[in-house]
Amino acid sequence: MIEIVHVGLGPLGQKMVRSAVERGSFRLVGAVDVDPAKVGRDVGEFCGIKPLGITISGTLDEALRGRSPQAAVVTTVSSLAAFEPQLAALAKAKLPVVSTCEELFFPWRRQPELARRIDQICREQAIACVGTGVNPGFLMDYLPAVLTGLCQKVTGVRVWRIQDASVRRIPFQQKIGAGLTLEEFEAKHKAGTLRHVGLPESVDFIADRLGWHLDRVTESREPVTAARDVTTGYKPIAKGMARGVFQVGRGFAGGNEVITLTFRAAVGEPESYEEIQIEGDPAFRSRIAGGINGDIATCAVTLNAVRSILAVSPGLKTMADLPAPSWFATST
Amino acid sequence: MIEIVHVGLGPLGQKMVRSAVERGSFRLVGAVDVDPAKVGRDVGEFCGIKPLGITISGTLDEALRGRSPQAAVVTTVSSLAAFEPQLAALAKAKLPVVSTCEELFFPWRRQPELARRIDQICREQAIACVGTGVNPGFLMDYLPAVLTGLCQKVTGVRVWRIQDASVRRIPFQQKIGAGLTLEEFEAKHKAGTLRHVGLPESVDFIADRLGWHLDRVTESREPVTAARDVTTGYKPIAKGMARGVFQVGRGFAGGNEVITLTFRAAVGEPESYEEIQIEGDPAFRSRIAGGINGDIATCAVTLNAVRSILAVSPGLKTMADLPAPSWFATST
Repeated sequence: MIEIVHVGLGPLGQKMVRSAVERGSFRLVGAVDVDPAKVGRDVGEFCGIKPLGITISGTLDEALRGRSPQAAVVTTVSSLAAFEPQLAALAKAKLPVVSTCEELFFPWRRQPELARRIDQICREQAIACVGTGVNPGFLMDYLPAVLTGLCQKVTGVRVWRIQDASVRRIPFQQKIGAGLTLEEFEAKHKAGTLRHVGLPESVDFIADRLGWHLDRVTESREPVTAARDVTTGYKPIAKGMARGVFQVGRGFAGGNEVITLTFRAAVGEPESYEEIQIEGDPAFRSRIAGGINGDIATCAVTLNAVRSILAVSPGLKTMADLPAPSWFATST
Repeated sequence: MIEIVHVGLGPLGQKMVRSAVERGSFRLVGAVDVDPAKVGRDVGEFCGIKPLGITISGTLDEALRGRSPQAAVVTTVSSLAAFEPQLAALAKAKLPVVSTCEELFFPWRRQPELARRIDQICREQAIACVGTGVNPGFLMDYLPAVLTGLCQKVTGVRVWRIQDASVRRIPFQQKIGAGLTLEEFEAKHKAGTLRHVGLPESVDFIADRLGWHLDRVTESREPVTAARDVTTGYKPIAKGMARGVFQVGRGFAGGNEVITLTFRAAVGEPESYEEIQIEGDPAFRSRIAGGINGDIATCAVTLNAVRSILAVSPGLKTMADLPAPSWFATST
């Protein structure tokens, strides 16, 4: 049993708590959320499972009173700047941290000063910290990099994560803009609320592992427009409206596009799949037909990283620095 | 540039040297083989490339005279017992070791005393050592274990490595028994010369990563018999003769077959592919259509592990203990 404290009880955090409890390999000893409406409630009941006898605390200090978890699982923010003060408090409490903060996954190129500061805090407090999840964290970055381990030569890495959102949660369909007019989509996009965060970090991670110095990283984002009426989602989508989002992250080296990461999530997408194409020697394609459910897998990848974070030296780590991820059973 | 010494110049060792030189990320500074017919020759010329100005030595001591490589790449034996004295000499010379010795990949269950002894030698001499390659080392063990990192629950791991040997080297076709009568196949099988080594080690590695305690590991091996005349290999194979080998490694826990690794290499096999099926939540299949060329990939996986072995603490490691494998470019 690995004893953990959970920080951040939004929809993902709630699912993480349910996954951790169901798993049997973790013992939740504390839970934190800043929302006064959540504080004081039993975390199990709040997350929709049995009472766990653990009350949601408003602060980390309070959650840790009389308890010594081995690690913290953090599902609070996507932005590294917002994450820094949270990390500082966790580090002061000597807690190794696994977080779904997307920008934490590989901040070394885009936010080097902040990355160095976080690394420094971790080293001073002798704890390790990693950002992970299914994406960023696994399918579009870690796994493609690992697959290049089969190669004598690599000239390009292309990844597709294509999802039919019809079968996903309503909040997910809303998050990708399904059912918005193109004007609404554009407005939400500009407000920064309509995007998958972390594609440039995934590009940077791959380049770093392969020793490629990129001249340029770009990210495009546009609506997937319904060519006809679509009725497979949580609400009907009329022809001409957005049925999802299409994002492409690209990395260029020496004028060549060496990394292309394509993320497409839309209601009514004909097929879900994960595909990785490695150009080189050998050249090959690896494909997971049907794709991977992001809700389950993000929780799984994060929880599976908890064992790994306990095994490494202090500092801001990437998934590549940790022992190989895998599911594991821990006897009580 | 990573400076290496290469030990063992059989067919695989020769290909490894060619790959290392071609790669541009390694500088070969010494080469060893015990065969007097090879000693004294230029290693580049002997391996079929340009002269490298490095003479093949008969002993490690001689190869290291005046040179300080950072690591040794060892392609000598499949047996761990035979590997031990070689490792002892390399460790004494303070050389981290990456080897294709199949039994070294995960010897902890089948040969625990020998594994402990090798681990002890490594720690005493403060070097790290790992056994790897494409199989064992990657496709049927490391990669399936990594893919379970996406899971909240895992109940079974099934792997297929299916190869049409028609397109492979003649020695490979011979190694898998293509063109033998079933009696010849059986005789060679009994002599131990007709097998893929390492399937039980792959089963053990997966179980160890997942925390499964296996009651039993089995390995079956049988000829793939030609149902009709086959003419796609290096020589015609008559109906009723062996056209290749079919091996299955199985791991059982609590009476259930939780791990099944199927290796099938035969001339005239309709399709080559790598497939991994994870049973659990999520359940999924990952497939590389066309398969991975084992000759290229074994050299690649081994060379890519050299960077990783330099980054870890002393001891006998497994691929799971090393930083994530990946191809890499190193500037000079």
